[in-house]
Amino acid sequence: MERIIIDMDEVMADTMGAMFEWYAKNYGLPLDYSKMKGSWMLGIPDEHKDIVRQRLYSEGFFRHLPVMDGCIDVMDELNKKYEVFIVSAATEFPNSLRDKLEWLNEHFPFLSWRQLVLCGDKRMIAGDYMIDDHVRNLVHFKGKPYLYSTIMNKDDTGYERISNWQEVAEKLL
Amino acid sequence: MERIIIDMDEVMADTMGAMFEWYAKNYGLPLDYSKMKGSWMLGIPDEHKDIVRQRLYSEGFFRHLPVMDGCIDVMDELNKKYEVFIVSAATEFPNSLRDKLEWLNEHFPFLSWRQLVLCGDKRMIAGDYMIDDHVRNLVHFKGKPYLYSTIMNKDDTGYERISNWQEVAEKLL
Repeated sequence: MERIIIDMDEVMADTMGAMFEWYAKNYGLPLDYSKMKGSWMLGIPDEHKDIVRQRLYSEGFFRHLPVMDGCIDVMDELNKKYEVFIVSAATEFPNSLRDKLEWLNEHFPFLSWRQLVLCGDKRMIAGDYMIDDHVRNLVHFKGKPYLYSTIMNKDDTGYERISNWQEVAEKLL
Repeated sequence: MERIIIDMDEVMADTMGAMFEWYAKNYGLPLDYSKMKGSWMLGIPDEHKDIVRQRLYSEGFFRHLPVMDGCIDVMDELNKKYEVFIVSAATEFPNSLRDKLEWLNEHFPFLSWRQLVLCGDKRMIAGDYMIDDHVRNLVHFKGKPYLYSTIMNKDDTGYERISNWQEVAEKLL
């Protein structure tokens, strides 16, 4: 069985969307999307960066993220065809760890704790396919990489792109 | 720089020792070490297995484990010579995740959150050397495996053994 490595934030979970919704409700200020190359944090006004960062570190933020459209059904099928591992850069955020495990258990009951990897760097991860929204995670990967498109990576080149879970199904099922 | 993958429980942390000390204090019963092949849980009397399992799942247990003798100094040197990743099978125990990160931060301040990997299965981990006390984790590894000796693996064969951190230094520094 071939192994597929799948990222969590911005691929399975709409982390950025949840943060922007919270930000709009609390501050109602426009965000500068043109500055978000590499990290959406760059588009947050300087005077609010600390409060947004605090929210990333808080307990519960990663527990209640929306699931990307179509992700659950396609993941269920991927899980029958591949050895699936969900690999999330999470150790920077101590409170995200249990939240991410519980989020996965809630929305993807067909996946097991054996299939979750919470790390910082992803360079030691080996597999046949990898779907991730950061070039820094794909660049060390020895298998076939797919760049999941987000506002942060829109100018990155050199990788085959996937824009949504319909396309994951078309390319991998 | 070559990459070395190092296990946490029974290699860096004396998890079994901490549990047995707690067990002796609370129950004072002899443990049957001859039954611990593969898992020390097998040596716990049946009537106490549930309470011991509860302790493994509780918040704080993995936060306060003793560090193995000599581990800190040798790790500091390994960290200068190798790309070090600490890879721990932890996702079975949701409350262990933050505890393990904080334990690492406390005792190994020269290691970063980028170097910690919390997973279930370890078959997707790639590197040049791996030190682990479970054959099931070493068996898929493509690099050079070292079996860290514990009471649980004493009958396992086919792997070069390491018995303590003095030997880690002798073999790898």
